[in-house]
Amino acid sequence: MRIALGIQYDGTAFCGWQSQPHGKTVQDVLERALADFACTPIHTIVAGRTDTGVHGLGQVVHFDTELERADFSWVRGTNAFLPPEVAVQWAKPMPETFHARFSAFERTYYYALHVHPVRSPMLAGRAGWVHTPLDIDAMRAAAACLIGEHDFSAFRSSECQAKTPVKHLYQIDIRRAGDLIHFRFRANAFLHHMVRNLMGCLVAVGRGRYPVSWLAEVLASRDRDRAAPTFMPEGLYLAHVGYPETFGVPAANLGSVPWSVVWTD
Amino acid sequence: MRIALGIQYDGTAFCGWQSQPHGKTVQDVLERALADFACTPIHTIVAGRTDTGVHGLGQVVHFDTELERADFSWVRGTNAFLPPEVAVQWAKPMPETFHARFSAFERTYYYALHVHPVRSPMLAGRAGWVHTPLDIDAMRAAAACLIGEHDFSAFRSSECQAKTPVKHLYQIDIRRAGDLIHFRFRANAFLHHMVRNLMGCLVAVGRGRYPVSWLAEVLASRDRDRAAPTFMPEGLYLAHVGYPETFGVPAANLGSVPWSVVWTD
Repeated sequence: MRIALGIQYDGTAFCGWQSQPHGKTVQDVLERALADFACTPIHTIVAGRTDTGVHGLGQVVHFDTELERADFSWVRGTNAFLPPEVAVQWAKPMPETFHARFSAFERTYYYALHVHPVRSPMLAGRAGWVHTPLDIDAMRAAAACLIGEHDFSAFRSSECQAKTPVKHLYQIDIRRAGDLIHFRFRANAFLHHMVRNLMGCLVAVGRGRYPVSWLAEVLASRDRDRAAPTFMPEGLYLAHVGYPETFGVPAANLGSVPWSVVWTD
Repeated sequence: MRIALGIQYDGTAFCGWQSQPHGKTVQDVLERALADFACTPIHTIVAGRTDTGVHGLGQVVHFDTELERADFSWVRGTNAFLPPEVAVQWAKPMPETFHARFSAFERTYYYALHVHPVRSPMLAGRAGWVHTPLDIDAMRAAAACLIGEHDFSAFRSSECQAKTPVKHLYQIDIRRAGDLIHFRFRANAFLHHMVRNLMGCLVAVGRGRYPVSWLAEVLASRDRDRAAPTFMPEGLYLAHVGYPETFGVPAANLGSVPWSVVWTD
């Protein structure tokens, strides 16, 4: 039987998602907890591998098992073996045609950015930080050129394993709440480091280091050396993974997330 | 010269505020950082000692020094020696008549409570958690009897060193936002464990374990054994300390706090 799980995690203490021989990863602790609960090894396939320090709100995995358990039993049973930084949010039996990665047609990332002269302990590991004001209108204007289907090679890490650098970016929203600026990126898929590289460029424009028109030039150049450095991972959240409705994948539970009040639409 | 500092900290990793011979406390790391910056030992007096796991948003300390530095130099210089979990938010020279503890006439605490069948990794250490629904109207109705000047012995820890159990509770607000219920307590002063003991009782009423009228009986009894167990510290935040206006103490910077959107008034 194929089971899908919704997973949340605080990425601060982890060396990213993907299993590693050395270093603590989310996949490692999840598969260990599943094995402890199921009393048999379980291998998971993930929707989106996240980097060191990046958080998961609406992460999705699937695995195959002979074991029959009530849906909520998978949730409660696995959570009993997981550390506080990781928790299964829901479990649902799926048809064999469901694949956590290949069935997904859309991903949404949040980025939370603290803009203040002084750093905040409650946001350490939870938000990026810049200590100088940012021009939010300039960032919005610069972001407009990114919407649509483009070759995003200029924002692609050299380690990216994607088949093609062409992705369809549906939406970039930028909103202020208190001393934070919240960013939301929605695309069919993202290249490795793409959101953090876009963040680096948007912040450079927001600071006035480059004019609004610069981002379109960087995009058109398809040259990674033209873009700003990769921005810090702390404020990045994999918020949602979209699947065809027929699978009935439960929505990510964002109600427990501090930024949920910002992204209610 | 007397200097006041505004301090924020994530209490998760600390054995409370007060200096201890063994164990990491906020006072210890703050005084070490101040000494490193000032190149001389500095002893601080705090507005409100917080327990293990309790967070500080608007904590205030004062100390006396011969050293003359620009206000923001105290902030930036001390923060350079502090771990990510603690940060000075502001510094201000004060007259000799200012005392971080004795000049304070009002304290405000927040409590953030996650109400959901499944625990949330992003709220681990940041919010209390109950997995069954709570009747928010019942909690509000029960809280009403606490407002005013009362002998709060029923909610006082046996280790409390306050001179009198009589305190004036000005306000209790309870608001829902997403899957969280936020509590705000404002009083002239609080007894040791008072907010956590009140939380334990309010949650017991919210769960329907006791009727609304029970809380007034507990208060009138002045008997700690009648009240509910002390509630978990994770969701508790010292939000604000009030001083006479003449001192011009800067407001706590709550704009960087996830709950700031809830408590804007």
